[in-house]
Amino acid sequence: MTARVYLAGPEVFLPDARALGRAKKALCEAVGLIGIFPLDGDVDLAGLSPRDRGRAIYRADVDMMKRCDLIIANLTPFRGPSADVGTAFELGYMTALGRPAFAYSNCAKPFAARLSALDPAGPHMRADGQLADARDIAIEDFDMADNLMLHGALGEGELFLHQALPGRELTDLTAFGACLRAARRLFP
Amino acid sequence: MTARVYLAGPEVFLPDARALGRAKKALCEAVGLIGIFPLDGDVDLAGLSPRDRGRAIYRADVDMMKRCDLIIANLTPFRGPSADVGTAFELGYMTALGRPAFAYSNCAKPFAARLSALDPAGPHMRADGQLADARDIAIEDFDMADNLMLHGALGEGELFLHQALPGRELTDLTAFGACLRAARRLFP
Repeated sequence: MTARVYLAGPEVFLPDARALGRAKKALCEAVGLIGIFPLDGDVDLAGLSPRDRGRAIYRADVDMMKRCDLIIANLTPFRGPSADVGTAFELGYMTALGRPAFAYSNCAKPFAARLSALDPAGPHMRADGQLADARDIAIEDFDMADNLMLHGALGEGELFLHQALPGRELTDLTAFGACLRAARRLFP
Repeated sequence: MTARVYLAGPEVFLPDARALGRAKKALCEAVGLIGIFPLDGDVDLAGLSPRDRGRAIYRADVDMMKRCDLIIANLTPFRGPSADVGTAFELGYMTALGRPAFAYSNCAKPFAARLSALDPAGPHMRADGQLADARDIAIEDFDMADNLMLHGALGEGELFLHQALPGRELTDLTAFGACLRAARRLFP
């Protein structure tokens, strides 16, 4: 049976989301996997209130995840120093279901370095010996690509980093390709 | 049997995280629940590399989640317009395990309004009819408190919003108390 991959990531918010989804699905097909893009759900939103539309899309996405064998999550920083929260939710969801997870980020800079760069004055050492930002909020310094719950869910060889060119952070598929090759080894 | 509540939230990054954890646990106890704070894990980090420390904390947090009957997630915006990604992962994890979830945010402003406020020029309508920010990235406009995967995981009566005073966004426990009362009805 051909394995189905849930393609999580914030590219669903881009104007060319559907074209990107098609490109990702074509790359899946090329290695013998079936890609399922979050916008693939067959959701009838007619006549629904905004919130009910959101809920219907949520249910469709959850249904698609349940029917997938693995997830490839795009953890590229989105609207801040961390990954998209919807993608983080989905990585947690699939991890709890015991589905294999692969992930990539198109930002190769470690999380601690990204957080440290947010303040012009740089980070400082808090009274408790913890590296912290200007608001005294801890800077996680675990040699990881993002919050430890995200990176920690991924074993060695399941997370791929690539520094995309400026403007290509959400669309570059180099590291996605590396995820696909790793996934292919698990689902030959 | 007394129900155990996993207390997810970015307050673990504050200098007074442990005191906040104790305060949350005391409020749990007052309504007959047992609060489990992410820093409660008994993790021996001695001699580990930074990344292995992060992994050990991840495993301890996952073990605690598995032994909890429900989650209360603090979805207050953290380092950007959305919730902490670690908390988002944990909400997804517990949702997939079928555990009841409650959540709160100490920011009462709707997600679309928060995203719209990020650009001085305000949002615009994209060619495809989608509200979007200055980078042409969609502004989710579903009358929700955050990304639809987070809000969508929570039924009516499971998400509580409260506008905390400036500087109290991550520590105000008003809406946490509302979550506890709702949880108490489910686990009397």
